[in-house]
Amino acid sequence: MHIAVTGAAGFLGQRLIRQLLDQGELRGQAITRLTLLDQVEAEVPGGSRVEVVSQARDITAAGAFDDMLDARPDVIYHLAAVVSSAAEADLDLGLAVNLDATRALLEGCRQRDLGNTRLIMASSVAAYGGELPETLDDMTALHPQNSYGTQKAMCELLINDYSRRGLVDGLVLRLPTIVIRPGRPNAAASSFASSIMREPLNGEEAICPVPTDLELFVMSPGKVVEALVHGAEVDGEAVGPFRAFMLPGITVSVAEMIDALREVAGSQAVERIRHEPDTKIQAIVGSWPTRFHTRRADVLGFERDRDFRDILQAFQEERH
Amino acid sequence: MHIAVTGAAGFLGQRLIRQLLDQGELRGQAITRLTLLDQVEAEVPGGSRVEVVSQARDITAAGAFDDMLDARPDVIYHLAAVVSSAAEADLDLGLAVNLDATRALLEGCRQRDLGNTRLIMASSVAAYGGELPETLDDMTALHPQNSYGTQKAMCELLINDYSRRGLVDGLVLRLPTIVIRPGRPNAAASSFASSIMREPLNGEEAICPVPTDLELFVMSPGKVVEALVHGAEVDGEAVGPFRAFMLPGITVSVAEMIDALREVAGSQAVERIRHEPDTKIQAIVGSWPTRFHTRRADVLGFERDRDFRDILQAFQEERH
Repeated sequence: MHIAVTGAAGFLGQRLIRQLLDQGELRGQAITRLTLLDQVEAEVPGGSRVEVVSQARDITAAGAFDDMLDARPDVIYHLAAVVSSAAEADLDLGLAVNLDATRALLEGCRQRDLGNTRLIMASSVAAYGGELPETLDDMTALHPQNSYGTQKAMCELLINDYSRRGLVDGLVLRLPTIVIRPGRPNAAASSFASSIMREPLNGEEAICPVPTDLELFVMSPGKVVEALVHGAEVDGEAVGPFRAFMLPGITVSVAEMIDALREVAGSQAVERIRHEPDTKIQAIVGSWPTRFHTRRADVLGFERDRDFRDILQAFQEERH
Repeated sequence: MHIAVTGAAGFLGQRLIRQLLDQGELRGQAITRLTLLDQVEAEVPGGSRVEVVSQARDITAAGAFDDMLDARPDVIYHLAAVVSSAAEADLDLGLAVNLDATRALLEGCRQRDLGNTRLIMASSVAAYGGELPETLDDMTALHPQNSYGTQKAMCELLINDYSRRGLVDGLVLRLPTIVIRPGRPNAAASSFASSIMREPLNGEEAICPVPTDLELFVMSPGKVVEALVHGAEVDGEAVGPFRAFMLPGITVSVAEMIDALREVAGSQAVERIRHEPDTKIQAIVGSWPTRFHTRRADVLGFERDRDFRDILQAFQEERH
């Protein structure tokens, strides 16, 4: 079992790689090789007997995937992407990385007859937008209101078509907002959602820029990685006539998140959250859909977090 | 008012051009120039004082749109496309013409600051597919089951994003099955729908390959051209958060079409239809959605045919 990962140096890539090496097998087959691809050489976890090749590549360059694909991976995790704010700031960069590189990857698979290679791409809740219903489902149209979501939605269509034609065995998982991310706050509009839990647990102050009745559709890093692993194992035929769908997040309000923090870490943690409304962040985050019927994912056996308290406790355990 | 038309030599392009020259104005402004683009030099209707430039271009070649865009058209009708059967037979050709050329056209507009140019692309009912609800609406997801529909759906997303960014003023109209087309039967699976009316009216035999209870979602050539003209006149802001939607066809069964033929041309015409079931055509045509709530188009003032009898009578009048 040879697994390739693009975007392997990122938060999700690194976590996925550790999980794969921990379990040592995928689809009941021993993992014998990992190929890691990123702009920089991705870190290779030590202590494993799996052959790990880490390549620094600009995936917008011609032939960037050649070495990786020549080795005929059984599963490809395509996590490399220009994120939403950057894709919005630079249309050409977003199109080159998010759309053209994905198309080059598909073409590379086609040229090498990798019709049985499972290609798993991460898409996003940002692909939804516009005048949305109260509760979304697998048949809700993608009307993205940002270039990142547009490029992801275009890739979904292309991966579906290449899969339908038997040129690759594709699967696209639309990710909910991932909380709680480790590390430091970043420029993402959703950064506060991790920050208001993580910083107080570390004895630091955090700013909550949104009203506490604001809801989010979230998934823990652990469950996202489980979903990526499970995505390699589901039967392509069973996915049905479209190879992209939303993963089962849970809907949680900021107030519920704060209540969970109080239960787990007491009032002194909650008092470290400063409420400073930011209308810009409210406008962006408030436009994201938060309620989904994820029937396709449920039927295929993808699992959601039980509740936010579970997410918080898992984060606490990992810190220690 | 300078109007450019790609695919200008086609059935729809020719009919649109005649209509534009007949009315002489668009958006209340006199039409002063028409630029026609196609693989071959499109026919230029005579007797008009409008400056008409007809260019033979391979739109997959670099710079194919340069001359057209340098003349800064106010409205562009982008009708050029590789149709469904050809796009299915040749993935590379479909991607080059339907996707890459449309992207090149958008980029050309962006480079020339044509943010106020109304770009109207024809999309198709073929963009829908998969497990569809009984009645579709503007929020039904596009899960195309053919490469043509995939490429059109990708262009819809791209045109929407370029419009959202103010790089062009785009609009995409998804066309129902167009009946009654003039001319001869062709290789399209829906060809019979025109054939079983047109040939009997000409005293010729026609073959009906589907059960008479099969339904179609149809629009007359006249109403499609009206929609293209109206598409230049609607306010881009009023279109809402997504620039693509289905045009208002009417749902009609083959039996209703045959009844209308009997009313208009008598039983001897109906007797010229031979019923020879073709499971292949049934499978393709039977998978197309036939019932839509086209709220977006209705609100914007796009009009449907009154009934199939109207369509048939209009065709009769045009023949004479």
